[in-house]
Amino acid sequence: MEAIEPDAASKETGETMPKEFYFEDFYVGQKFHSIGQAKVTAEEIKEFGSKYDPQPFHLDEAAGENSFFKGLAASGWLTAAIVMRLRVQSITVAGGMIGAGVEEMRWTQPVRPGDSLRTEIEVVGVRHSNSRKEFGVVRTRTLAFNQKDEVVMRSTVNFLAPVKPTA
Amino acid sequence: MEAIEPDAASKETGETMPKEFYFEDFYVGQKFHSIGQAKVTAEEIKEFGSKYDPQPFHLDEAAGENSFFKGLAASGWLTAAIVMRLRVQSITVAGGMIGAGVEEMRWTQPVRPGDSLRTEIEVVGVRHSNSRKEFGVVRTRTLAFNQKDEVVMRSTVNFLAPVKPTA
Repeated sequence: MEAIEPDAASKETGETMPKEFYFEDFYVGQKFHSIGQAKVTAEEIKEFGSKYDPQPFHLDEAAGENSFFKGLAASGWLTAAIVMRLRVQSITVAGGMIGAGVEEMRWTQPVRPGDSLRTEIEVVGVRHSNSRKEFGVVRTRTLAFNQKDEVVMRSTVNFLAPVKPTA
Repeated sequence: MEAIEPDAASKETGETMPKEFYFEDFYVGQKFHSIGQAKVTAEEIKEFGSKYDPQPFHLDEAAGENSFFKGLAASGWLTAAIVMRLRVQSITVAGGMIGAGVEEMRWTQPVRPGDSLRTEIEVVGVRHSNSRKEFGVVRTRTLAFNQKDEVVMRSTVNFLAPVKPTA
């Protein structure tokens, strides 16, 4: 549905990056930029809307005009899903990125057909898991920007990362 | 992708319900049950996974077996999207349900192919909007259950509801 355009953005700002990240590879202040951008189309907005958020302003341009959004706008849950894809593409956690909950999520600007989204993620906390000894919890703050560098969504999300196996 | 099975669940537990809800129609303690259930299929899990959360345990049964999830599991963002549909179906806000942010969201059990999800929503706060005089903010706690009555996701989400127009 959406084009991924590889661009000059690096996977991680800073030193050499491991291929797969373990808990020990994360540190507070670490930043990850999305690889390329996600282009959002009217088709994707309507398709997602019809499946998961069937409200006029996510389905139809004319209905959108007469709504709060003054035009067709992406469901916030589509934006969240696209941001998840950008996250998974920019951070490769060993064994996969297992969500450990959302602390906060805010939609700050409507996402429109033709918008290109990118993300900046910062690690804001690392701690060992209380319930699962073999995992740590990585807390991240994500800003999603459109092509005008407006923040369209911000979130604080936790994920699990496995503790590095000892030899 | 998913069948909606109308069942005996009522839109609102309690007194007579307006067709479209304005801010004044919401009160703390008010409860809404989803209309019917959302059946989750392997096809939908894989389709959503390939678009928005391309990780092996959301794409392929065999790869899922060797993962944290011990089988194919829905992306948490698919679960969140399905829950949004159940919310929109069970609460009709005048002018549409405009998200005003997520306070918390937790995935407490994997969602599997064949699961049927339903939601219970409780209003936990109502206040006038500071920034938009014509709206109020409704704070809701949502529990999403599978067919075994296990909670698969819980969230606290705010949405806007318009203040009733004065005659």
